[in-house]
Amino acid sequence: MSFLMPRLSGLSPYVPGTHTEEEGALRLNSNESPYPPSPGVSEAVAAGAGDLNLYNDPDCMLLRGAIAERLGVKPQNVMAANGSDQVLLLAMTAFADAGYPIALPDLTYSYYDDFAAVLGIPLLRKPLREDFTLDAEDYKQPGVMALFPNPNAPTGLAVSPGDIRAIAKADEGRVCLVDEAYVDFGCASALPLIAECPNLLITRTFSKSGSLAGARLGYALGAEGIIEELSRVRSATDLYGVSRMAQAAGIAAMREWPYYEANCRRIEETRGRTTEHLRALGFEVLPSLGNFVFAKPPMDAALLQRRLAAESIYVRRLSAPRALGRLRITIGTDADMDRLLRAITRILEEER
Amino acid sequence: MSFLMPRLSGLSPYVPGTHTEEEGALRLNSNESPYPPSPGVSEAVAAGAGDLNLYNDPDCMLLRGAIAERLGVKPQNVMAANGSDQVLLLAMTAFADAGYPIALPDLTYSYYDDFAAVLGIPLLRKPLREDFTLDAEDYKQPGVMALFPNPNAPTGLAVSPGDIRAIAKADEGRVCLVDEAYVDFGCASALPLIAECPNLLITRTFSKSGSLAGARLGYALGAEGIIEELSRVRSATDLYGVSRMAQAAGIAAMREWPYYEANCRRIEETRGRTTEHLRALGFEVLPSLGNFVFAKPPMDAALLQRRLAAESIYVRRLSAPRALGRLRITIGTDADMDRLLRAITRILEEER
Repeated sequence: MSFLMPRLSGLSPYVPGTHTEEEGALRLNSNESPYPPSPGVSEAVAAGAGDLNLYNDPDCMLLRGAIAERLGVKPQNVMAANGSDQVLLLAMTAFADAGYPIALPDLTYSYYDDFAAVLGIPLLRKPLREDFTLDAEDYKQPGVMALFPNPNAPTGLAVSPGDIRAIAKADEGRVCLVDEAYVDFGCASALPLIAECPNLLITRTFSKSGSLAGARLGYALGAEGIIEELSRVRSATDLYGVSRMAQAAGIAAMREWPYYEANCRRIEETRGRTTEHLRALGFEVLPSLGNFVFAKPPMDAALLQRRLAAESIYVRRLSAPRALGRLRITIGTDADMDRLLRAITRILEEER
Repeated sequence: MSFLMPRLSGLSPYVPGTHTEEEGALRLNSNESPYPPSPGVSEAVAAGAGDLNLYNDPDCMLLRGAIAERLGVKPQNVMAANGSDQVLLLAMTAFADAGYPIALPDLTYSYYDDFAAVLGIPLLRKPLREDFTLDAEDYKQPGVMALFPNPNAPTGLAVSPGDIRAIAKADEGRVCLVDEAYVDFGCASALPLIAECPNLLITRTFSKSGSLAGARLGYALGAEGIIEELSRVRSATDLYGVSRMAQAAGIAAMREWPYYEANCRRIEETRGRTTEHLRALGFEVLPSLGNFVFAKPPMDAALLQRRLAAESIYVRRLSAPRALGRLRITIGTDADMDRLLRAITRILEEER
């Protein structure tokens, strides 16, 4: 017997990368940071653990202040939430509906599909070009919300601020939603545009560059008006969503941001090395601006994924048709990537 | 300029109890526990703070196992989420919609209204009787989800398991949703009914009896089928919602549950003392089974609330018509309630 409403009966849930707590496993399938949070984060979380009987600040004032200060905006330009997934879900709840579709790339973060399925929002899928770049013209349709990550995942390719500006300006009555989950690894942010584009909404996460995937913390950036409207929907659905621990962790991470910036630069260097090495092994690798590479191996991708998993090395193969022959590989430490590259070299020789 | 979808344009957000971090303030307005979490909780949270760069287990297997073990059910009867507010929102998303209304008391947790407004679900408000008890007959309407807290908030009055069984059995095709946020303070749970009522869904929180309001942790209980369906909607909207820290805190709290049970018994004793004392001062006090009392003072309730706030004692006055002449007062420690009762005694004399 089913109790689900008819609109949800076909719901096929998001399949994430294999979650393992296995000792010695190399998790290169969820785009986590290989670097632990900064010392101040652990201290702040531990220090707050005694006050957990008291509710957290629903407005996240100190956290929003810390984010705003680092980014040079006002706290009113910032809304915090329980992960950027929640920001995205709230934005789609607030600014789209059954009669107001969303345009998005045919190859992108597949969780958008699940949100849209639950919310009953029609999706207009815009094929990326043959080289996986995004054609800004596809997103200038009036009355349609534009949604894409920048850089895009799993491709790692970016849309320029000029193109984002043009997309936002094409219809200032509808929202342009840019998911900057991976922006800190060398991509230009759309943030400077919020002053001139009241309909531009940016989402960010602490899960990647902030080394806080397990803490659940994300935020939205935008003009005061759109942030106020989004916050109204958040306060009507998950007022206390950002825990004391997540708020404390985020504040501490903002204070110690130079540590995280240094990690981002290390990841970019490791990404460069890994890209070159994979190409030397015969992979086709897109020039990524994320903390991952999207690579076509010179053998069957599914087989390579299985063979790596047998050695407790986990990489991601996405189910979108254009992604099937490729692997999305998270950039870990240099040592992590050496282990991966040694294993790949051996497997390629054995499979030759 | 507004970007909100038309259905949300009238959204008036939930107004929580005043949130204060003021030193020396007595927060009796949010039904928090006055007792800190157990030592194992603080240790578990601190211990997990170094691994925050890694994603949490999306399925919360260890936490669900710990909850199931304490309650004598299976992990498949348990779904964890980011606060019981999220469980409620997900249940309303999954099991109701614009064509499938919800019946609920006219005086109850007002956040249900906000969820329904965002989700576009019609509400059928069923007036409580003159004595604030709930008439089970009102909830036997076929094709309508029944929703009520047990005990109800702000009244603190309970519905019997026999009545809940009859409500669930009246139409086994629709969901009966019982919010047991306050069940641990002396109320009989509907949990034994899940074996015979596949449409019964129970929500629980760690925010009250579990001393974890600031950690955001709640869960659903029900037959395997309904939990699987609810989990499908959760995994399509907030897969990683329960942070590493919240999972660690919940597991530790379950292991040390005798500490929390002892706190519940202390709160019940303090509630008894407080009820008697308030009645002796001329208050009309409902016999509450929650960690709060709903009391009609022998003076203007709004004035009393303001006078108490001037002394940094915060109590709650709800905006529902039948609640305006009353205050909802959280039960703190004996010392907390002594401070409150001394202040009230003085104010009553001054206002006489």
